[in-house]
Amino acid sequence: MAEPKVNELMEKIVSLCKRRGFIYQSSEIYGGINGFWDYGPLGAELKRNVKDAWWRTMVHHRDDVVGLEATIIMHPQIWRASGHVDTFADMMRECPMTKKRVRADQVEPQSGIAYTFLGAIYNVNMSAALEALDEYVNEYPLTSKSALNKTVLNHRIYDLLKRDFPELRRDELVTEAACLTDVLQREIHIEAFEILLPRGKPPESAQLAAQHYYSVRMGTPTLPKVIGGASAKVEASTDYHPESGVRLGPPRPFNLMLQTWVGPIQSDENVAYLRPETAQAIFAQFKNVLETSRQKVPFGIAQVGKAFRNEVTPRNFTFRSREFEQMELEFFIKPDEAVEAISGSVTPAAELDSRPSPLDTSSWGWEAWHKYWVEQRIQFYESIGLPRKDFVEYWQKPDELAHYARATVDILYKFPFSKRDEKGELMGEELEGIAARSDFDLSQHARFSGKPMGVFDEDLRTAWGKLDDAKKQTLWQRYYENRKRYLTKTARPDETPEKIEKAAKEDADGLAKGQYIPHVIEPSAGVDRLILALLCNAYTEVRTPDDKGKAETRVVMKFHPRIAPNKVGVFPLLKNKPELVKKAQEVRDLLRPHLTVFYDDAGAIGRRYARQDEAGTPFGVTIDFDTLGEKPELLDTVTLRERDTMQQTRVRIADLAAMLLEKVR
Amino acid sequence: MAEPKVNELMEKIVSLCKRRGFIYQSSEIYGGINGFWDYGPLGAELKRNVKDAWWRTMVHHRDDVVGLEATIIMHPQIWRASGHVDTFADMMRECPMTKKRVRADQVEPQSGIAYTFLGAIYNVNMSAALEALDEYVNEYPLTSKSALNKTVLNHRIYDLLKRDFPELRRDELVTEAACLTDVLQREIHIEAFEILLPRGKPPESAQLAAQHYYSVRMGTPTLPKVIGGASAKVEASTDYHPESGVRLGPPRPFNLMLQTWVGPIQSDENVAYLRPETAQAIFAQFKNVLETSRQKVPFGIAQVGKAFRNEVTPRNFTFRSREFEQMELEFFIKPDEAVEAISGSVTPAAELDSRPSPLDTSSWGWEAWHKYWVEQRIQFYESIGLPRKDFVEYWQKPDELAHYARATVDILYKFPFSKRDEKGELMGEELEGIAARSDFDLSQHARFSGKPMGVFDEDLRTAWGKLDDAKKQTLWQRYYENRKRYLTKTARPDETPEKIEKAAKEDADGLAKGQYIPHVIEPSAGVDRLILALLCNAYTEVRTPDDKGKAETRVVMKFHPRIAPNKVGVFPLLKNKPELVKKAQEVRDLLRPHLTVFYDDAGAIGRRYARQDEAGTPFGVTIDFDTLGEKPELLDTVTLRERDTMQQTRVRIADLAAMLLEKVR
Repeated sequence: MAEPKVNELMEKIVSLCKRRGFIYQSSEIYGGINGFWDYGPLGAELKRNVKDAWWRTMVHHRDDVVGLEATIIMHPQIWRASGHVDTFADMMRECPMTKKRVRADQVEPQSGIAYTFLGAIYNVNMSAALEALDEYVNEYPLTSKSALNKTVLNHRIYDLLKRDFPELRRDELVTEAACLTDVLQREIHIEAFEILLPRGKPPESAQLAAQHYYSVRMGTPTLPKVIGGASAKVEASTDYHPESGVRLGPPRPFNLMLQTWVGPIQSDENVAYLRPETAQAIFAQFKNVLETSRQKVPFGIAQVGKAFRNEVTPRNFTFRSREFEQMELEFFIKPDEAVEAISGSVTPAAELDSRPSPLDTSSWGWEAWHKYWVEQRIQFYESIGLPRKDFVEYWQKPDELAHYARATVDILYKFPFSKRDEKGELMGEELEGIAARSDFDLSQHARFSGKPMGVFDEDLRTAWGKLDDAKKQTLWQRYYENRKRYLTKTARPDETPEKIEKAAKEDADGLAKGQYIPHVIEPSAGVDRLILALLCNAYTEVRTPDDKGKAETRVVMKFHPRIAPNKVGVFPLLKNKPELVKKAQEVRDLLRPHLTVFYDDAGAIGRRYARQDEAGTPFGVTIDFDTLGEKPELLDTVTLRERDTMQQTRVRIADLAAMLLEKVR
Repeated sequence: MAEPKVNELMEKIVSLCKRRGFIYQSSEIYGGINGFWDYGPLGAELKRNVKDAWWRTMVHHRDDVVGLEATIIMHPQIWRASGHVDTFADMMRECPMTKKRVRADQVEPQSGIAYTFLGAIYNVNMSAALEALDEYVNEYPLTSKSALNKTVLNHRIYDLLKRDFPELRRDELVTEAACLTDVLQREIHIEAFEILLPRGKPPESAQLAAQHYYSVRMGTPTLPKVIGGASAKVEASTDYHPESGVRLGPPRPFNLMLQTWVGPIQSDENVAYLRPETAQAIFAQFKNVLETSRQKVPFGIAQVGKAFRNEVTPRNFTFRSREFEQMELEFFIKPDEAVEAISGSVTPAAELDSRPSPLDTSSWGWEAWHKYWVEQRIQFYESIGLPRKDFVEYWQKPDELAHYARATVDILYKFPFSKRDEKGELMGEELEGIAARSDFDLSQHARFSGKPMGVFDEDLRTAWGKLDDAKKQTLWQRYYENRKRYLTKTARPDETPEKIEKAAKEDADGLAKGQYIPHVIEPSAGVDRLILALLCNAYTEVRTPDDKGKAETRVVMKFHPRIAPNKVGVFPLLKNKPELVKKAQEVRDLLRPHLTVFYDDAGAIGRRYARQDEAGTPFGVTIDFDTLGEKPELLDTVTLRERDTMQQTRVRIADLAAMLLEKVR
């Protein structure tokens, strides 16, 4: 079969998802809401199975990982410590008139005539005052209201009044000029406004736009007089909003965290954020978990849960959504200096096999643990049916790394919508990132909360006492340098180099007493992206003969049995034979405590198989007259059909549960 | 053992939850965040097990319920249709100075002297203007700036200027008075402000508070002059804020939904809400699920997920939180008129057994289904270890029902912190509500989205054709009346009685053609409340001899094995015997694919049992020298200890998995 085009294939998958109840647009009856997707009956089961498989692999099947379920809304200080409040942002430029924003790097170039206004004035009708202002504007820059030179203006107005009203006495002129200057200064609004019009459009519309703009800014009910209005040609500029033509404000960070308020007042002190990742809760609760779970470093804390990002352009179906789910592990390890003190040396990652086994990890430093987790995670994806060949292990280059990361591997999956490289190969899109984050996160929370995040390691203290002085000095120095580097990078203005050196020395002295802040390896996976990968991978078109022997194209969703939404379909051959139906329901009830069962008695059996193929159900069980003993030797046996091979075998009902459980576990 | 006092018992439970890692305060290292709680390693497993048990019971073990997993943020129109935008609110009163809010029905009464101010004026130093204003205030009510009569003021100022400056000419007086009137009107701010001072406090502090208040309101950098200041005695009034003493604003609804913005602009059109319940997503996706899941009415859609309510006073540990999880089922049924048309009559609920079984439900109306679900839900609670005696089935009285509800049963659980009735019996707190909501929800979404929410029922159409005319007329009329009642209650201003009657007629005519909007029964349970009930129920203190034979009080968490965080502890008798450790790890690995296993080799075996008792692990398996064959007849057997009886039996390793699975399933 020729490979379908990318868009066509994705369209087929999106359409199947809707038609079979895997994924719907959120709030579809209200026209949807951009970047939000719901999982229908089959999708919800698929997602449950994937999350369960992850939890079993990462938590239940290990002694060294425990779970956590923290809230989505946490204390806002957590997002200061993590850096999200300050740096989790896209650069955006805003149209000051419509308040619409565009990504700073994505503005369409515009050409035309730009009109520049300096400000506006309201409620002043005396022509002398306006003329004075005009003269003033020509001589002095109009930068702000407070910079207006009142004396200069007053003299100008006085002179102009004298010219226009020669009959007035001097004291009358003084009073009038003072009053006008006063009103002028009060009623002027100074603020640049620039608008680009396509060539040929009358300048009046620029003036009107400026008047409207200033009237909103000044809160006046009628249109004010504008000041300025000089025009200039502009070619292919990215400084104007493509819709309004208004000159954009400077690029500003637009934070991707969704914001809300908790408590009865919508005030700054009640601002809270919807978490943009699940990881930070793990760091914030690290000490509580350590103290209550009987774990010692190295150990991990796992969490699955929703996170939110106010993506500017959600895209690629569920791949980039605004509400999504993460499966994150923070695996805490000893710093390399501690490993070296205890084990004599740190095993170079290059010496580990390609599939490192954690039988003896005492000499593993961060590189070995990092390599181990990369391999573990790919094995997990293989275990739920994604072939290794469809992955790319992308090691981030030094200039791509976050400043705290020592190494990050992106596990890319070759989605149909992935870009292709120069050889035409799919380059893949990120499914998971596995970062070696050093001790950055726990250190940040220690600094921001004032609570110690270090651990005491008896093995380290004992080992340290047995080191020779040269070794002690080497390890102390390395740990000291690392801490100093962290403290310098994150220093507040009041933290002088001397203070930092002192703190780093204390940290290194602590190491010699068995104390350190654990380092961390973070495998962080997106649930929704994984579901999408599984859907893309499972989607298969087959040509088979239909009821009448005519070839037709059918879709088979070849999910791994471990994660398939339903494990087995149970079908009485005929709906209108009570004995068959009764027996089929017995089989259903027998299997149900162990497996998800879809019972279906409607339509021809071939149609029922086809429906379950499309839902991705790996097994089908048919109860026929032989089951009831028409052929006595087949009494209490059923036909077991496998989705992928379409092979049918005869199986004893008594053996069914154990046989199927073996295949789906 | 004497029953501990309520607070003492709850304190012990809260303390155990922290100490053993069931529940921590969210963001604890940052001082916490009120109304948010995290689940630690044991709590996360307990919660997973409870949600899984619910899902298995409600979805997997039934043919007539499917799952859904919708987003937390949905189209805001959903919350208009559901009524949450308009009515999901507490009445609150705000202090206009501090912006702090109090529940309107919970204001502490205050006494003292109240000072009333009318407004303030800034930037006016001419005494004539102020005097004129004083006179004006004494004669005319000071209600708003625009109501100030400028002509009256102008004349007063003119007269006063004339009195004070007899040397001025008439035209000078006119100019000056006009200018002052102008400034006065511009600079005055009219707004009542009232503050209550305890008797004996100097009136100046009231004046100062008013000046500060007006300066903020007017946005002026220095304190303005205040107008008014009359005083009056006040006794036990609930109109003043208990902290600031400032007179509260009128009671206003304070919506309990947390609000955010989705998209790059924080504008009204981008407002979105964090869902306050999971139910509405089910209604919004009803048609999609119906069309893709091969279900027919009656059937249900189930969802588990987070919801948020900005509770004014979170309390009772996790019982009333701001972020919580719900398990909701919407079970869609035929309207009674359709049931009667098809089955000839509707089974009266009173005729059902106390534990109705759904063998033949074709003649069940909403009362039967409602009774059925109440009983199902209590059976569920029993199945995870909560005894029926600890529940109260509370049938809401007619005046307590929501306007759309036909009946609601609250399932109350007798928490230690529940109030007691006059007989001293615990009255219980709501764990779940089971509401018969008629066709209100689907009708609302049909109206607000403009999308039809009705279904076509072939059985009904066929049955209708066979009814005699009298029956047709009766059923038509009843359905018509019900629809008219709904349409009248929810009518928009433009929907006249004539329009409503026409629409209700169309609906009743639709029924005759097999069409209706399904009715719904909604069992809606809170996960966190259930977890708290399970913790309270499991908490048991026992007195047993410690290592040295001295009696000590220990805590045993008697969770039902089905929901216990860990199912089995595996212990090598001694840590320093490699053969024992190896064998114990084999047993651990043998059980792990089937059960959650906690492996522990540290400390005396009695201590290890005690630790698992406190964690609620129902079974313990010890590998000793007999396991290794010291007594050959005991080779490959282990000691199995039951938590609740503390009984120990000898079991073959080969039988362990099956035996334990049987007990925990």
